Amino acid sequence: MAVNLAPPDPAALEPIAGVELGCTMAGIRQAGRRDLMVMRLAPGSTIAGVFTQNRFCAAPVILAQRHLAAGWEARGLVVNTGNANAGTGADGIARARAVCEGLACALGCAVEQILPFSTGVIMEPLPAERILAGLPSAVANLDAGHWVQAAEAIMTTDTVPKAVSRRVALSGGDVRVTGIAKGAGMIRPDMATMLAFVATDATVARADLDRLVRAAAARSFNCITVDGDTSTNDAFMLVASGGAGVVARDDGDLARLGEAIDAVAMRLAQAIVRDAEGATKFVAVHVESGRDEAECRRIAYAIAHSPLVKTAFFASDPNLGRILAAIGYAGVADLDPERIDLYLDGLRVASQGARDPAYAEAQAVAAMRKPEFELRVALNRGAGVATVWTCDLSFDYVKINAEYRS
Amino acid sequence: MAVNLAPPDPAALEPIAGVELGCTMAGIRQAGRRDLMVMRLAPGSTIAGVFTQNRFCAAPVILAQRHLAAGWEARGLVVNTGNANAGTGADGIARARAVCEGLACALGCAVEQILPFSTGVIMEPLPAERILAGLPSAVANLDAGHWVQAAEAIMTTDTVPKAVSRRVALSGGDVRVTGIAKGAGMIRPDMATMLAFVATDATVARADLDRLVRAAAARSFNCITVDGDTSTNDAFMLVASGGAGVVARDDGDLARLGEAIDAVAMRLAQAIVRDAEGATKFVAVHVESGRDEAECRRIAYAIAHSPLVKTAFFASDPNLGRILAAIGYAGVADLDPERIDLYLDGLRVASQGARDPAYAEAQAVAAMRKPEFELRVALNRGAGVATVWTCDLSFDYVKINAEYRS
Repeated sequence: MAVNLAPPDPAALEPIAGVELGCTMAGIRQAGRRDLMVMRLAPGSTIAGVFTQNRFCAAPVILAQRHLAAGWEARGLVVNTGNANAGTGADGIARARAVCEGLACALGCAVEQILPFSTGVIMEPLPAERILAGLPSAVANLDAGHWVQAAEAIMTTDTVPKAVSRRVALSGGDVRVTGIAKGAGMIRPDMATMLAFVATDATVARADLDRLVRAAAARSFNCITVDGDTSTNDAFMLVASGGAGVVARDDGDLARLGEAIDAVAMRLAQAIVRDAEGATKFVAVHVESGRDEAECRRIAYAIAHSPLVKTAFFASDPNLGRILAAIGYAGVADLDPERIDLYLDGLRVASQGARDPAYAEAQAVAAMRKPEFELRVALNRGAGVATVWTCDLSFDYVKINAEYRS
Repeated sequence: MAVNLAPPDPAALEPIAGVELGCTMAGIRQAGRRDLMVMRLAPGSTIAGVFTQNRFCAAPVILAQRHLAAGWEARGLVVNTGNANAGTGADGIARARAVCEGLACALGCAVEQILPFSTGVIMEPLPAERILAGLPSAVANLDAGHWVQAAEAIMTTDTVPKAVSRRVALSGGDVRVTGIAKGAGMIRPDMATMLAFVATDATVARADLDRLVRAAAARSFNCITVDGDTSTNDAFMLVASGGAGVVARDDGDLARLGEAIDAVAMRLAQAIVRDAEGATKFVAVHVESGRDEAECRRIAYAIAHSPLVKTAFFASDPNLGRILAAIGYAGVADLDPERIDLYLDGLRVASQGARDPAYAEAQAVAAMRKPEFELRVALNRGAGVATVWTCDLSFDYVKINAEYRS
């Protein structure tokens, strides 16, 4: 069902020296599937992250932020699927902490050096006993080559594991960037996506890493939407293990490394949309020539969240009126509809706010029948641009979400 | 398919002296259905209205506002379905004006005394010739008893005509309030709904009528949502014909009349949600004990717009996590999740931000299986309240909107 998204080729994924991944089947919600993943970081690694802005943020999100703020060097991450440990109050914090204690014990570090992450059903108690029972086999499985296994172990309604690698030359030598992500529904990240973990073997100072992770989130996970629902568990973590012995020391190095991290994050973010619940189309909504980026984003999200536009995408129906209506209610106060042009994959379908007289509907239908296309909106009043990646709204979205959890 | 919504009983609809309605089959988009409606107002009538805030407002909306602002006494309304005349530029204005001219000629008044309204497909040229050809038979059909016919003549994807009456005693005698509305999709009114026309035979000054229509819109059409899409053609018009010879003169009269108008508008607004595209459930989302009404509305709309919550409504699935997640991302910055309680039709399902330990899921499923229920959110931090009426998101919503227009 995923749109132009093949499973990752394990051979194409670069291991990151200093980062090992171990997975196991802990039977958290279902038997017989990998649902627990541990990531061990070599001493000297730095880590930075961005988290959901949802006020109902989950217990592991609260604890991970607390542990990061404590300033200890992170040594391990523990991630489970099947249960989000969200909306679980003080008991949820206690269970997340018990899991951290279990991994701290196994890795020989302090509990503050462990960051917990959970995804899955909300408002059910986390089965911490099963996770603790599974930890020894996950730790025994630790290996720098297990990125694809790890991508599988964090899936919920995802149909395809998501993993991407890049290699980049810094002044001191080559470094690698490898990352994984999960997410298919409840996707309208606000600072981050459901869960994404990206690591590089470069040596990067914590303050630089903070800037890199925020910049990458802004250009990737914060530019996608499936259903407009911001999750309670969003987290995007960036690790620099230093395993390559190459320091990203100057602005040139950081810019090049940042580009590679952005590219990995963007591919992962797009993979989430390609594998969105029920998606049959992957659509880039590109808004240009606005006054500023903010108004372009506002309009792009209004289009990408409109159920009427999304069902028209599903039907390959160039229903321009629905798109213009969404632009019109996006809340840009002094927008002049009579300056707006619309393009579908380069075909101008509307000019000056009305149907382009030269356009034949059959061409637009052909563009929209493709599993992947671009909708471009020109506001013709400035230099701002923004792109949001989204998908259509299909029968299967309703089916999956009416049946999930039952 | 409509939820607890019967067609109106013509005998229960009070005629409004001074207001006549005439309908015809003009073949605007389909043959063999009433699609053109004319309303004639007696001299001395006053009229006030609220219109869509969509920047892409339709040609008839622009023209109706212009004619209202000109300050002439309105004498006629002309309403067509099948074509919204939106996104049609200067040509759309010219066609809407031609229709007004046709009716002005037939009614013997100035073009500025006619207000035009259109609903239907967006961005297609309005077939003004067919409307002009249909006007004589619509005018010949004018009758004070034709409210149900008129409600039918303005339907698009509606399955049930919507018409409501109330009678209220003012100090000078009884007056009547009767109204009709249409709308089933692209419904997230912002000042008004798709189209609603309410008339009273009281005599009301224009300034008072302006206040009454705004207050009624705030309590009715501005409290509903189907899909979060604000239409390009929303309009809610309130007519006072004076036909009863009863003047609403003092604050007591205006308050009583306002209550009757509010009641009619609220019933019509709820009828739109009951007849929403694909709806199988009618849900009142009531948010209480917030700091103010604004934050309660924000949270109520976040819940009512969440595709995940709406599919859970469809599945009768008490998926509390999705509801809490929507509350959490509603943008209320300092909200404390640990104070929030949730109720389904009086059954407390969550307390202090977590699942209520005393609650059995089967009871919540039973509440949600009903075609109509209330979801109540207590924020426990103030005295603000707000209610939004909405519906579920079903397979049929996708089906209707993937097929409409084709």
